[in-house]
Amino acid sequence: MTLANFFQPQGIVIIGASNNPAKIGRQILDNILNSNYQGKVYPINLKEKKIAGLKAYATLEDLKKQPLAEYLIIIAIPAPFVGAEIERGAKLGAKNFIIISAGFKEAGDEGKKREAEISALGKKYQLNILGPNCLGFINNVDNFNASFSETTAVSGRLALVSQSGAIGSAVLDWLKAYNLGLAYFISLGNKAVLTENNFLQHLEKDKNVDAVIFYLEDILQGREFIKIASKVAQKKPIVVLLSGLSPAGEKLAFSHTGALAKESKVIEAALKRAGVIQLTRLNDLFDIILLLKNKAFYHNLSPKITIITNAGGLAVLTADAIEKAGLELGNNLDLLGDAQAQDYYQALTLELKKKTNSTILILLTPQTNTRPEEVAQAVIKIATLYPQRAIMASFVGGEAVGAAKNLLLQNNIPVFSYPEQAINSLALVVKNQQTKKDLSVFSKQSQKKKISSIPSDYVALLKALKRYNFQVAPTHYYSSSDKINKFPVVVKAVGPDFIHKTDKGGVILNIKSQFELKKAILKLKKEQALYFKNKENKIVLQAQKKGGLELILGIKRDENFGHVILFGLGGVYAEVLGDTQLVLADLNRNSALAALKASSLFPIIKGLRGKKYNLDALVDTLINLSNLAAAHPEIKELDINPLLLTEKEAIVLDARVLTD
Amino acid sequence: MTLANFFQPQGIVIIGASNNPAKIGRQILDNILNSNYQGKVYPINLKEKKIAGLKAYATLEDLKKQPLAEYLIIIAIPAPFVGAEIERGAKLGAKNFIIISAGFKEAGDEGKKREAEISALGKKYQLNILGPNCLGFINNVDNFNASFSETTAVSGRLALVSQSGAIGSAVLDWLKAYNLGLAYFISLGNKAVLTENNFLQHLEKDKNVDAVIFYLEDILQGREFIKIASKVAQKKPIVVLLSGLSPAGEKLAFSHTGALAKESKVIEAALKRAGVIQLTRLNDLFDIILLLKNKAFYHNLSPKITIITNAGGLAVLTADAIEKAGLELGNNLDLLGDAQAQDYYQALTLELKKKTNSTILILLTPQTNTRPEEVAQAVIKIATLYPQRAIMASFVGGEAVGAAKNLLLQNNIPVFSYPEQAINSLALVVKNQQTKKDLSVFSKQSQKKKISSIPSDYVALLKALKRYNFQVAPTHYYSSSDKINKFPVVVKAVGPDFIHKTDKGGVILNIKSQFELKKAILKLKKEQALYFKNKENKIVLQAQKKGGLELILGIKRDENFGHVILFGLGGVYAEVLGDTQLVLADLNRNSALAALKASSLFPIIKGLRGKKYNLDALVDTLINLSNLAAAHPEIKELDINPLLLTEKEAIVLDARVLTD
Repeated sequence: MTLANFFQPQGIVIIGASNNPAKIGRQILDNILNSNYQGKVYPINLKEKKIAGLKAYATLEDLKKQPLAEYLIIIAIPAPFVGAEIERGAKLGAKNFIIISAGFKEAGDEGKKREAEISALGKKYQLNILGPNCLGFINNVDNFNASFSETTAVSGRLALVSQSGAIGSAVLDWLKAYNLGLAYFISLGNKAVLTENNFLQHLEKDKNVDAVIFYLEDILQGREFIKIASKVAQKKPIVVLLSGLSPAGEKLAFSHTGALAKESKVIEAALKRAGVIQLTRLNDLFDIILLLKNKAFYHNLSPKITIITNAGGLAVLTADAIEKAGLELGNNLDLLGDAQAQDYYQALTLELKKKTNSTILILLTPQTNTRPEEVAQAVIKIATLYPQRAIMASFVGGEAVGAAKNLLLQNNIPVFSYPEQAINSLALVVKNQQTKKDLSVFSKQSQKKKISSIPSDYVALLKALKRYNFQVAPTHYYSSSDKINKFPVVVKAVGPDFIHKTDKGGVILNIKSQFELKKAILKLKKEQALYFKNKENKIVLQAQKKGGLELILGIKRDENFGHVILFGLGGVYAEVLGDTQLVLADLNRNSALAALKASSLFPIIKGLRGKKYNLDALVDTLINLSNLAAAHPEIKELDINPLLLTEKEAIVLDARVLTD
Repeated sequence: MTLANFFQPQGIVIIGASNNPAKIGRQILDNILNSNYQGKVYPINLKEKKIAGLKAYATLEDLKKQPLAEYLIIIAIPAPFVGAEIERGAKLGAKNFIIISAGFKEAGDEGKKREAEISALGKKYQLNILGPNCLGFINNVDNFNASFSETTAVSGRLALVSQSGAIGSAVLDWLKAYNLGLAYFISLGNKAVLTENNFLQHLEKDKNVDAVIFYLEDILQGREFIKIASKVAQKKPIVVLLSGLSPAGEKLAFSHTGALAKESKVIEAALKRAGVIQLTRLNDLFDIILLLKNKAFYHNLSPKITIITNAGGLAVLTADAIEKAGLELGNNLDLLGDAQAQDYYQALTLELKKKTNSTILILLTPQTNTRPEEVAQAVIKIATLYPQRAIMASFVGGEAVGAAKNLLLQNNIPVFSYPEQAINSLALVVKNQQTKKDLSVFSKQSQKKKISSIPSDYVALLKALKRYNFQVAPTHYYSSSDKINKFPVVVKAVGPDFIHKTDKGGVILNIKSQFELKKAILKLKKEQALYFKNKENKIVLQAQKKGGLELILGIKRDENFGHVILFGLGGVYAEVLGDTQLVLADLNRNSALAALKASSLFPIIKGLRGKKYNLDALVDTLINLSNLAAAHPEIKELDINPLLLTEKEAIVLDARVLTD
């Protein structure tokens, strides 16, 4: 449902407005009245006749002649009464609600029940409901504050969407200190009905918004989020700080808000697929706001950085940070400790006149004859003439540089307390930009099933993989009448008691003759006689492949983000180095190859010391896995271990599957 | 030489004092006069009779009756005249100098010559000379400012020693903004005579200093630094931010100040051995000052952190940071968004009354009814009663939390803009503390030579290693009359043309009989006939060892820090994973084992999937390497590749050495 009326309501109703200034309903009313809201405002209160100079109404029924579908209804009354008000409003045709009240999902079983009721009402009547347990929203584009948070004095071109009201408040307060602003601030709260997905979709087309910044504690409907984000990210940067990705953080998040369980590697893969800038620390959120607030600037960032400085040591530290972040150091113009404004002006002019694009970082520390404000003014003067060039600054110090820093910020030049922050934020954005050109919209892949379902029987599974174009080592169940004409072969015990067959001596390699084969089978049957009483345990023969690199590949189904593909080194190093890579299972040639190249095992896969591996065959295998996953949603887990990668082929030697 | 008179001079002479307020010599004079310096001050100026109300002298000669050995002489005149003044002073018995003037090492060949002259004078007359090209120093313990930098208003208990004046200025300015101070600020400049080593040694015994913070661009006399630091660090924390460790940073540092070339892995190993807290980013320097400024606090940090918060989201982000930093999350007390001062007071009291020690982190974001200053006051009130407990805070926001943050800082409670900063700084200090108990003073190991020098001949080198207690696979030069009675053996071609013998087919494994041996030798001699014309290329036979894990070990001599020991995985993974570990070559059982345990290959070495390796034998090998290096300073490089680690032994299969 459209959020147009939600964000630009013809009128606002506050259920729970009050003459008591301590009440939240009253604070919201005041915020609306103190902002520049152009529509009508209707306080609702059972007892009062007048609130804040406005006529008060006893109940929503009194407003039934109003076009309630175009209104926004803000509810700030105790939780047990909220559901009834929503239903009353819905029956009167209202569509847009904010539930400020707490006492829902975050507050025990009773609260959970209340929240389920709200969700159900939202569905039944097709309502836009923000919250519950939220601060509301601030619309600085239309100049009104429908929250109980203080707004920033100025507007901006970023939208901040925060699941936590407390963190939203902190950002707003921080912005105020620097006289910066937002286009929208949206406090999501418990996300009973409206989620990050709805707002992201809405903000895609909002011309007042250049970038969307999220603080989230969980992502509901993960696949949908990736789909929307991968579309929006092609037009405007999306930043996501998702907390609770560590085991300790996850535990805390769950105990507090019942946030969804997260698998951090799956989430990282998903956000990467979405083309999102993923943050892991709160300070990065503040830093990146500075970089993204200027749209022109954002589109002209270069990974090559020119430094202009009055402190050599600061430039050296910056160079260290540049190297660490994988960016490139261009020129370093050291103006020395006694540099004055005109020195900065000249150096900056010279650099800007060059045809080659670079990101310029102005560094300064306050030394004996330094005049930071004059330097700031000189920088601003010349920067204004080159609005398309990316210029940022780090003035390091305290009192002496405070005013200069504010001056730069007011004039759209991002300024950071330390050069490392500038470089880290720049790296996040530049690397995100580099992935944009290959970013496609994530969508459900429709793959035709080639077989009705994936069998778990050992030989049947290998056959099924062949149907999906995998190369598979020839394998069949052993029968005593077998005549093998190609040796060596491998004997394997398979079945429910041989999941870890190697540990049980269930794999016999290098059988070179019919005689050795007989011997091996006899020995195996004798040693594992107990298990072979179970007819599900069987013996297979497989053509033995030699040499090559052992890899582990697999499919795993995440209940939120869908199928992911895993790949990594096999053998003894796999467990120790634990370097399994994850990608979402919508791979094509480009993305499969990119995933391999980005992985830490690429240097091995691409071959070294004269060893060669068939990279194309590995890419094919990854795509086959992706297609298999798309065709068979019933797959919960599938392991290929090992896949043998040689100069000629990528061949499946062993597989295991778990389906619904 | 003692620095007592240098830091507490009976008188101060300023050569280059002036009536022109723009001159640096005058600014320094003013700084001395404006501070609380108790001794006499003598301006020297060829022309003036009076400067700043003081009698001025034409030349140092005029002060020859003064006890110049107890005076400090500050020189702020053009570089070409400095040397003569130093010599004049030295001849009059002066010992303590600061050269403020630039125009030395950092300024071309002429300058380098001048600096060499200063160094020579320092040596000849046994002088304490700070600089050249520095700001001087500030002694807040005795309340005087012998620099041309503005001092902080208050004193503190940390010493800041900065090679860069510009970065020193930035820190001083930052401290001023928070009304914090230092015991000493020392601007090292070009370090022609006095270096970080002299000041570290001096500050060891200074009761006014709780911790020493360095910003350095290079470490001169590396081994001496490690020796001093490993002693001082047992008493007080030492922090080192060393810039220019990346290739880009190093290049920049060299071009600007001619800083020494650095090998970052050697430096990291050296600083670790020194027991120093190594920083890599400027912001960490600022953050750690907050943690270290309270001595009592420092000694009671716990890796277990209790969170008290009014924002659940902030606690979750903090938990993520705790996990990432390898610390431990204790209690999390969420007081919810409407928490007031008394809520914080109660929660904090409860936690402090517990017998178990934990580091307490108070979190706050400014929400609708939050009163940050009241919370700060409540925290201070109770914290005062528990001066031995470590309490830190992160109040996140802007305007609304500024005053509260200052209040906390003034009352010795470290407060950080973001919780991640608090956690990262804490982790640096806690991890450093954990290594303290095993910290011994680094000293030149005296090892008796068991052989006069290390031979480079293949078989002789292996024999030499045996003398130093290494286990070595039996190896001898092949002769056609050889009768081998134990197979299998390995044939190897060795010598100048077989450095990469495997690539040249110069290693033949698995020779099982006298017949196979003959065949192999013939084949090798035929295929490599060209090389065997050179008599230095020979053939060796070695007992073949099977199974086990291949490791690479080695010795490398760093010209600044001395011998280091390297170890890592061998085989194909070595090059790709590139995970070689470095430790300084003064290993004993404890430190060798600790180095192994801290390395990323420990999970492999300690065995997995039923594989077992003889860890003791590997520890012995590391110690042997260390002893070998100590006995033979002539070793430039020595590689053992591979060392085969099995269940029973750690055995050298191949070695190579490079000596002076």
